Amino acid sequence: MFYKGFSPYEISMLKVAVNGYGTIGRRVARAVSLQDDMQVVGVIKARPDYIARMLTDRFRLYAPDQERLKVFEQNGLHVEGDLSNLLDEAEVVIDCTPEGQGEKNRPVYLKSGVRAVFQGGEESSIADASFNAYANYDQSSGKSMVRVVSCNTTGLARTLSPLRDSLGLKRVNATLVRRATDQNDSSKGPINAIEPSLGFPSHHAPDLRTVLGDIDVESVAIKVPTTLMHVHSVEALLEKPASREDILSEWSGFRRILEISGKDGRKSTAQVMDMAREMGRDRSDLYEIAVWKESVHVNGNTLRYIQAIHQESDVVPENVDALRSMFEVADRETSINRTDSKLEIGRK
Amino acid sequence: MFYKGFSPYEISMLKVAVNGYGTIGRRVARAVSLQDDMQVVGVIKARPDYIARMLTDRFRLYAPDQERLKVFEQNGLHVEGDLSNLLDEAEVVIDCTPEGQGEKNRPVYLKSGVRAVFQGGEESSIADASFNAYANYDQSSGKSMVRVVSCNTTGLARTLSPLRDSLGLKRVNATLVRRATDQNDSSKGPINAIEPSLGFPSHHAPDLRTVLGDIDVESVAIKVPTTLMHVHSVEALLEKPASREDILSEWSGFRRILEISGKDGRKSTAQVMDMAREMGRDRSDLYEIAVWKESVHVNGNTLRYIQAIHQESDVVPENVDALRSMFEVADRETSINRTDSKLEIGRK
Repeated sequence: MFYKGFSPYEISMLKVAVNGYGTIGRRVARAVSLQDDMQVVGVIKARPDYIARMLTDRFRLYAPDQERLKVFEQNGLHVEGDLSNLLDEAEVVIDCTPEGQGEKNRPVYLKSGVRAVFQGGEESSIADASFNAYANYDQSSGKSMVRVVSCNTTGLARTLSPLRDSLGLKRVNATLVRRATDQNDSSKGPINAIEPSLGFPSHHAPDLRTVLGDIDVESVAIKVPTTLMHVHSVEALLEKPASREDILSEWSGFRRILEISGKDGRKSTAQVMDMAREMGRDRSDLYEIAVWKESVHVNGNTLRYIQAIHQESDVVPENVDALRSMFEVADRETSINRTDSKLEIGRK
Repeated sequence: MFYKGFSPYEISMLKVAVNGYGTIGRRVARAVSLQDDMQVVGVIKARPDYIARMLTDRFRLYAPDQERLKVFEQNGLHVEGDLSNLLDEAEVVIDCTPEGQGEKNRPVYLKSGVRAVFQGGEESSIADASFNAYANYDQSSGKSMVRVVSCNTTGLARTLSPLRDSLGLKRVNATLVRRATDQNDSSKGPINAIEPSLGFPSHHAPDLRTVLGDIDVESVAIKVPTTLMHVHSVEALLEKPASREDILSEWSGFRRILEISGKDGRKSTAQVMDMAREMGRDRSDLYEIAVWKESVHVNGNTLRYIQAIHQESDVVPENVDALRSMFEVADRETSINRTDSKLEIGRK
């Protein structure tokens, strides 16, 4: 594999298929297409809706199967082929289908000899490794099946792994205040209730261990009537004592963690998402985890902080990095730098 | 005044100040800066918040007065001067300050000899003419003080004026289902109630007459707990009979009216705003008025339809056109074409 750049040799681009073009799929497809070392050979969409009509300017459209291919054509949309045709073109598929569908797709990918990246809605057992670029980039190295952990787990892994590496993590306790549904969904609730997740711990605690390693983690999740972002209240017991300034300074070395302040008006997720619109980001996304500076408190070895997670987009750079780790074409730092540069992460 | 284009002469750009950089101001500033025949000489912001910090990459920042200039400087923000300094640089100011503040600013503009565009939150008496590009472009021609009507009135004027011109309007009756507040606001409600406007008619009916002329209009407004868009249910009594197809065909000649359908998934404002994100629009805005095709019904001379209005952005192209009408530098069609081209309106 050669990289575009100063090399005089022919450029070889990793051929990526994106299966599913919903909230995550369409963002991941764009992020992959922006990279110098990978290209989107096609995307699969299940329904001929407005999103399908708008994607054909950007990507080659495929249907999941012959039956749905016909539905697209009946709706006047040109389709290149079905999933098996797309897999023939691809070296790797990023599965962004609805929760649980990835498990059904896995044998199809295996049979076609195409590697696969799954999303956090799938069980961790679907893949050879779960992935977060900051927490465990190298564990996916050379793997055929990798799972990028969910938006919430990504948010926790981002801010906790630098602390694990510099100060040591004894214990984590997180309360996740979750958005009800995504911004483009008008079919789900709650619209006027607060709904706790009644299993304990919530699935985020074991999920976090898949990328952060064997640490003591507890989590609870509570759903609220908003669509913008999740918010986490995190308590972490550090192995080494540290000051508040040490923590902020540690995080400042990581572009995917964004320090924000209520003092300049960013008091809620409404203003944090507005900031993303001001940044001019595609789809008004915020790839970074936003940590409120004022919420960072240290008492002895105990750290507390509050962070906001844009559930639609924080896993997007992770999917790009997962590909480079699997195909062993870049080390952690190189991959993160490339991804961040193309997505303009770290540009405030 | 010369226009950039094929002319070999020196380019003279209209010098525009933007007073107020909130929901409307920041969008108008960008839209003006994209045009070939006008430039933003500076913007006024009242508070040193995150939006102020992010605007200095794009525009020269001014403070409303010396006192607030000092507050900016104490917060480490470089300010070019105050309002009077900015007015020295400008030929026209677009006032995007909060409702009612425009009235206080008017004498300042008059004294400085700078023309002014106000927004729909001000009384119509503030200006020599109220403006909507489709409805009454020429009425602002040569005027010093012009008011662009509000987002809701703009929405009604957009879809009704083509019908007024082609079929004649006898009577209009509109129910406006209004969003509670803008997306970046977390301080206002209602958050769990439906709040009717108890004055009858709501202010939209008289406001619509300022741009549509002396027609019989009634309106009621009802606030609901959402931030995305307004939705209007409109009934219009036409002078000439027309078919549903006639109406849709008439509207199809106007780029700022966008026909949408629930059949391809655009069933609510959630998906309409999602479509705007897919369009790649700046700040995920939708300048067009979206009319649901299925909602268009004709019974004799009575037309009914339902439309969605993106309150944050539909007046943006109107502000640009208002400038060209006031300074008599382009006729209606030329101005609308230029504005739409730069804002990519009509590109689906």
